[in-house]
Amino acid sequence: MRRLALRPSFAVLVLGTLAANAALAATAPHGGVDMLAVLAALALILVCARVGGALFERFRLPPVLGELGAGIVLGNLGLVGFHGLDAMRSVPTVEAFAQIGVLFLLFQVGLASDIGKLAAVGWSATLVAVLGVITPMLLGFGVSIAFLRGQGPLTHWFVGATLTATSVGITARVLGDLKRTTSVEGRIILGAAVIDDVLGLIVLAVVSGLIAAANAGRAFDATGLALIVAKAIGFLGVAVVAGRWVSRVTFRFAARLPGEGMLVSFGLAFCFLVSFLAGRAGLAPIVGAFAAGLVLEDVHYQALRERDTKKRDLNELLEPLSGFLVPVFFVLMGMSVNLAAFATPGVLGFAALLTLAAVLGKQACAAGVLGGGVDRLAVGLGMIPRGEVGLIFASIGRTLTLNGERVVSDTVYAAVVVMVAVTTLVTPPLLVWRLRRS
Amino acid sequence: MRRLALRPSFAVLVLGTLAANAALAATAPHGGVDMLAVLAALALILVCARVGGALFERFRLPPVLGELGAGIVLGNLGLVGFHGLDAMRSVPTVEAFAQIGVLFLLFQVGLASDIGKLAAVGWSATLVAVLGVITPMLLGFGVSIAFLRGQGPLTHWFVGATLTATSVGITARVLGDLKRTTSVEGRIILGAAVIDDVLGLIVLAVVSGLIAAANAGRAFDATGLALIVAKAIGFLGVAVVAGRWVSRVTFRFAARLPGEGMLVSFGLAFCFLVSFLAGRAGLAPIVGAFAAGLVLEDVHYQALRERDTKKRDLNELLEPLSGFLVPVFFVLMGMSVNLAAFATPGVLGFAALLTLAAVLGKQACAAGVLGGGVDRLAVGLGMIPRGEVGLIFASIGRTLTLNGERVVSDTVYAAVVVMVAVTTLVTPPLLVWRLRRS
Repeated sequence: MRRLALRPSFAVLVLGTLAANAALAATAPHGGVDMLAVLAALALILVCARVGGALFERFRLPPVLGELGAGIVLGNLGLVGFHGLDAMRSVPTVEAFAQIGVLFLLFQVGLASDIGKLAAVGWSATLVAVLGVITPMLLGFGVSIAFLRGQGPLTHWFVGATLTATSVGITARVLGDLKRTTSVEGRIILGAAVIDDVLGLIVLAVVSGLIAAANAGRAFDATGLALIVAKAIGFLGVAVVAGRWVSRVTFRFAARLPGEGMLVSFGLAFCFLVSFLAGRAGLAPIVGAFAAGLVLEDVHYQALRERDTKKRDLNELLEPLSGFLVPVFFVLMGMSVNLAAFATPGVLGFAALLTLAAVLGKQACAAGVLGGGVDRLAVGLGMIPRGEVGLIFASIGRTLTLNGERVVSDTVYAAVVVMVAVTTLVTPPLLVWRLRRS
Repeated sequence: MRRLALRPSFAVLVLGTLAANAALAATAPHGGVDMLAVLAALALILVCARVGGALFERFRLPPVLGELGAGIVLGNLGLVGFHGLDAMRSVPTVEAFAQIGVLFLLFQVGLASDIGKLAAVGWSATLVAVLGVITPMLLGFGVSIAFLRGQGPLTHWFVGATLTATSVGITARVLGDLKRTTSVEGRIILGAAVIDDVLGLIVLAVVSGLIAAANAGRAFDATGLALIVAKAIGFLGVAVVAGRWVSRVTFRFAARLPGEGMLVSFGLAFCFLVSFLAGRAGLAPIVGAFAAGLVLEDVHYQALRERDTKKRDLNELLEPLSGFLVPVFFVLMGMSVNLAAFATPGVLGFAALLTLAAVLGKQACAAGVLGGGVDRLAVGLGMIPRGEVGLIFASIGRTLTLNGERVVSDTVYAAVVVMVAVTTLVTPPLLVWRLRRS
């Protein structure tokens, strides 16, 4: 019925009678989802992703850039007067497919990672994460002071907080495209990204808690904060320590079940479960997907693999799944870049400086790398992308008020959107340039 | 935030402060989808599907039965007082995943089918479809006359119409489990299911059109009907004739693009596109997925396959995808069986007779099989399942009124739900029994 409302000309042409009407309703949403819209969007996104990726591949650039580019084009056709795809920007099911896609990507990165080798760069990763949270926050605080006159320090801290957390999806994809996921630099970036998600969560909790306390005229609730921190760190500890055991037991159980397809189903169920638990602990689900891949080892499912006629491992089985869904994620990420936002008056200067703070701030990460033989600049560049976490922080800020004013105004929000877009877009070329040199 | 409202005890425990509040919001729905609910539901469904399937496999029964059984258990835990999973019954994203899963299933069936061999049973399939639409409709009309006193003939015809269309998902899966997809019986059933979807659409259009005309006191609009029929038949003609050409051109184009993953993406995009067009033509999207698989031939993508390091064909690449999503479809189908509906007073007798009409009506299909050496009973049994199409017809009937009364009352709707459930559940064991004998 919704399609009917959207396409009156089509409707008038075909649907003279209620009979036709009823027949069309036969194709209407099942369970609230307009499947035809989903199918059309997926078909278009898949083709555009591959064509865009291939164009960039031809110039020896990573396909992810082409997928982002395809998304930017699809998402901004409205600027040249074509609005036929506007509805596609917000099909929740396609969003969900994209989210599952990025989980698969991080799950595969985790599978390719070795927990021992990751631990070997643990101190570097921790230092990189800490520096990469503190420096952008201080710089963001400074930019906010310069631009948002008349606001209190808590607002400035909140703006700084939106710059803290790296979104590792883009970097993981570039590392994968260049087959550098397991390099020292790759491991430091991945470890640091997990840690800085925890730190970002703590920063957000502290700043929002202080704002709430100031608003209510009461003291800051340290117990609540301690609980949040305990949950996040507890999740990581439990995931790494108990996760291996759970994985071993799960696949031993699965190996005793007759039938085909056990490896895919149990592998994915394990990934989804750990991602869910990460989300419940307040972390980004992709942190859970990475942890799931990290603790799941080939030996756990050896028996299941032997049973497969083609002796495929989990990574090989995941390949078509991520080949389907990962490009959907990056095209959607491109589509969410609203080019018009760059032109909003008053926003651009603030956005430019905020972005600069975000990019330069993460270059402090280079100082956190311990030992020699590591490309420090590559680590700093790999930490640049800010993704949904920054947007989520900003949207929380919109719900908070301080002295009757919203902590995150429309201007600040638009600037954060620009910052997220630019940091996402500049990272792949910079990182490719740097890693190809070394 | 929604989770907060649902779990007050959890909320009170952890969230003393707004700080905690804000931190949890960081895990809140992206773009309107509650991803954590999706992840939890998928993990649970995947494990239950495989455990259920394995249980049945152990008794040499097809896994699909176990997946349906697992769904029935999950969906009816409320009957034993456990309501923790009730929210899972209607996660639209999971629904959508299931719908994509059944598309993959029919796409694979189409890929395994040969259009020439399907055409070879064309006359049988057509006769089977025609008999399988007329007989259940007449029987349903009779049952309706016996039970729904005081209603006009149009209502009785509408009840009959809900029994017409076979939902081929279950049968396709059983045939696949038993490696009989390409047998003569398999081909007749698949061909007939495509044709009876078209016939069902026409029947629905005619009956609803007559009801609308009677209500408005005007003549039946034959032009509208002709358009519907033309669209549906036009789609099938275009799909089969032009589809092969489009498929060849598409993959020739894809083969010229550099990069990995082209085969999966273009194969799926083609499947989604044809499914979308089927939906737009008023047919079930699975008819489109089957048609897409039918016209897509291995030779079209030979160049892409050669490029793959493991020389995988589309079917092999689709396997992990359908291994992930197809069980989700059957578990959800099981979950939609509301056991309590069987106990509604007044419904049970009507439902039992309606179901009998549905099952026996399709046995007339046996008479439509031309030539010898074919297991006619197996064809009749394979045509039994009614799925969403029946439910969609019934829900359209609820929106139509005749002399101020709804054409499909609550009683009729509940009976149709029971009929769909029973026909879905009885088919696999009957078909397995029959095919194993022959």
